[in-house]
Amino acid sequence: MYKDLNTSVRTLMTPGPVEAEPRVLRAMGTPVLGQFDPEFTEIMNETMAMLRAVFQTENQWAFPVDGTSRAGIEAVLGSIIEPGDRVLVPIYGRFGQLLTEIAERYGAEVVNIETGWGQVFDPQVVIQAMQQVKPKIVAMVHGETSTGCMQPLQAIGEACRALDILFVVDAVATLGGTAVKVDEWKIDAAIGGTQKCLSVPAGMAPLTFNSRIEAVLLARKKIERGLVEPDKYKLNQNRMIRSNYFDLSQLMDYWSPARLNHHTEATTMLYALREGLRIILEEGLEPRFARHAWHEKALIQGIQAMGLTLYGDPACKLPVVTAVSIPAGVDGEAVRRMLLEEFHIEIASSFGPLKGKIWRIGTMGYSCRQKNILHVLGALEAVLLWHGAAIPAGRAVQAALAVYRPQQSAL
Amino acid sequence: MYKDLNTSVRTLMTPGPVEAEPRVLRAMGTPVLGQFDPEFTEIMNETMAMLRAVFQTENQWAFPVDGTSRAGIEAVLGSIIEPGDRVLVPIYGRFGQLLTEIAERYGAEVVNIETGWGQVFDPQVVIQAMQQVKPKIVAMVHGETSTGCMQPLQAIGEACRALDILFVVDAVATLGGTAVKVDEWKIDAAIGGTQKCLSVPAGMAPLTFNSRIEAVLLARKKIERGLVEPDKYKLNQNRMIRSNYFDLSQLMDYWSPARLNHHTEATTMLYALREGLRIILEEGLEPRFARHAWHEKALIQGIQAMGLTLYGDPACKLPVVTAVSIPAGVDGEAVRRMLLEEFHIEIASSFGPLKGKIWRIGTMGYSCRQKNILHVLGALEAVLLWHGAAIPAGRAVQAALAVYRPQQSAL
Repeated sequence: MYKDLNTSVRTLMTPGPVEAEPRVLRAMGTPVLGQFDPEFTEIMNETMAMLRAVFQTENQWAFPVDGTSRAGIEAVLGSIIEPGDRVLVPIYGRFGQLLTEIAERYGAEVVNIETGWGQVFDPQVVIQAMQQVKPKIVAMVHGETSTGCMQPLQAIGEACRALDILFVVDAVATLGGTAVKVDEWKIDAAIGGTQKCLSVPAGMAPLTFNSRIEAVLLARKKIERGLVEPDKYKLNQNRMIRSNYFDLSQLMDYWSPARLNHHTEATTMLYALREGLRIILEEGLEPRFARHAWHEKALIQGIQAMGLTLYGDPACKLPVVTAVSIPAGVDGEAVRRMLLEEFHIEIASSFGPLKGKIWRIGTMGYSCRQKNILHVLGALEAVLLWHGAAIPAGRAVQAALAVYRPQQSAL
Repeated sequence: MYKDLNTSVRTLMTPGPVEAEPRVLRAMGTPVLGQFDPEFTEIMNETMAMLRAVFQTENQWAFPVDGTSRAGIEAVLGSIIEPGDRVLVPIYGRFGQLLTEIAERYGAEVVNIETGWGQVFDPQVVIQAMQQVKPKIVAMVHGETSTGCMQPLQAIGEACRALDILFVVDAVATLGGTAVKVDEWKIDAAIGGTQKCLSVPAGMAPLTFNSRIEAVLLARKKIERGLVEPDKYKLNQNRMIRSNYFDLSQLMDYWSPARLNHHTEATTMLYALREGLRIILEEGLEPRFARHAWHEKALIQGIQAMGLTLYGDPACKLPVVTAVSIPAGVDGEAVRRMLLEEFHIEIASSFGPLKGKIWRIGTMGYSCRQKNILHVLGALEAVLLWHGAAIPAGRAVQAALAVYRPQQSAL
């Protein structure tokens, strides 16, 4: 009735999901273990240790939530926001709006400041807003895939620490592709994504948080258990962490040696995450970030050699996503369709105010390799010429090759 | 630094996670597709169609939530419970307590009725409670893995429909192993589990709901969007579905032809679920349930031939979990440890009042096969004899063989 799964092999050059590492897919074929099997809990511990390394943190708590990236964001915000808490969310793209929505649903009074899409914030602007708003939490996106911009975080993190504000960072797009220095930047909680620079299929949200977050969680748990104000049940119900699934205090008990039963850990996804992290640590963080930057450079050279222009302020470009303005007179969706149908390449469209105005090309994880960069440039040139765009022929791939083979190009 | 994943191959005879179908693990090696790739949305549609068949429903809505089983339960309860709603949860084991906790966290006034562990409810008792409590929702567990009991649902479902109460059923343990007749039993929403009778790794929660649930979701969405009472923002914030990730109204938009962006679907887990469902439909529901019942019978014969007794009322036995009383003088955990270390078999301990009193042996999905039943019986007999238990030697496997080879046993 239903056929064997027999899909096309795509070249995925979007901001996620990207191509999974072949070693990751192989690791997923490993037989299932019980969740309390000593061999499995060892895998849990190894994964925590590797996550600490990738998040560049000494935090005790670093584990995945079993859900896609926004599940991790919701686990952090939902576990620390109590109704009425003030949360400052500076918005510079689509995913700042998501942080706002999640915080509001958990009862927060959210204060937004906004900057134009294609820009990021001067940290001083955020710090001034913090001083005025006096929030309990500042929540920000590190890499905005919607605009291809990346927000510098360190000055904001230091100001949060000085003002005793919790600093929550959505590092979904950046973790594993460019530096996310949790401790150095004074980030209290950060959330990554698997289907982006980790090159693991979607379905897990790795996160980390420090003792400042843990203190909030433990205080709420005390209230829930009636250890304080036991006569005020209604109040306590209102202050409970609203989600069971996303309750980080229960997840701490599950990921600690206590191993208190919560959900059944997603065995095969954890095998995948472990293998993806292992590949990253084998490559080394700095070499990996340099590799991403190198391929990004080749892509940019190729794009510009076609006479196309990049969208957004170059000073804050997100290294793993390149936003390209769709040339006047070109139907961006027709180009994307032809890329998919004839070249099996997927690049991304965009959201909201940028819909129809830019393409977004991801260079993340295993998708970020020379073969893919050259393929996408050659294909994009061919499709644009096919559609009658007035671009120079034969330059895009040459320009990228000049990045990859500098000696030859000098001849 | 970290070694290749190289785990032992276990015989998993717990109530989950169970062994994954080899075909499912192979399907997970399929390359990742983009979430809006036409090939991928076709896979989404096929999975929905197969879920309808397995849930035995004509419901339009049948899709997985990207999280483990309790994520699906929380998605349903969290999307329909508004603060102050009355929810009746009849409890006959651990997972009724979980339904209670989730409903309370979402602001419900939960009313519990309880029956002894090892029993289920006379449907009339539940119906009387419904008439008194007049809840908006009745939430019940179909198969309680904690006690090995299964609750008959049809009479309760019919009464719910007559009284205009929403009937939510946790079918995590039963879906794919024994009948879950959503439409015939008048269930408004049901949640299954992947890592149990579907033999797919943990990490997805398939669910289905009907137009009665959909009406509640759409009414809440209207409020959120300010389409009614736009001046009462605080009230509206309070009535919003509290979770973004678990908001079924957003998930409907994602799983419908509108394909509104929500999360990034967990590609590889969806490949796995599709393959697991395909295997079930190839086998056929009734033959599959009969197979489960047949192996259960062989297991029970073997257990009883050792002189061990089953826990719980046999009239309501859950066909896919067999609870066995630990004989006096035997250390249940030492037995489990030796089964794991020497035979690579995992059986389960239990929770709360049953801790140390019963073992729980799952016969679910791919784990439910003759080789495993004979292996676990032989191993359990050997380990009990090793520990000096006064049981007859050589009978357990023979008794199971008599189920598998009736002709020979008659000789």
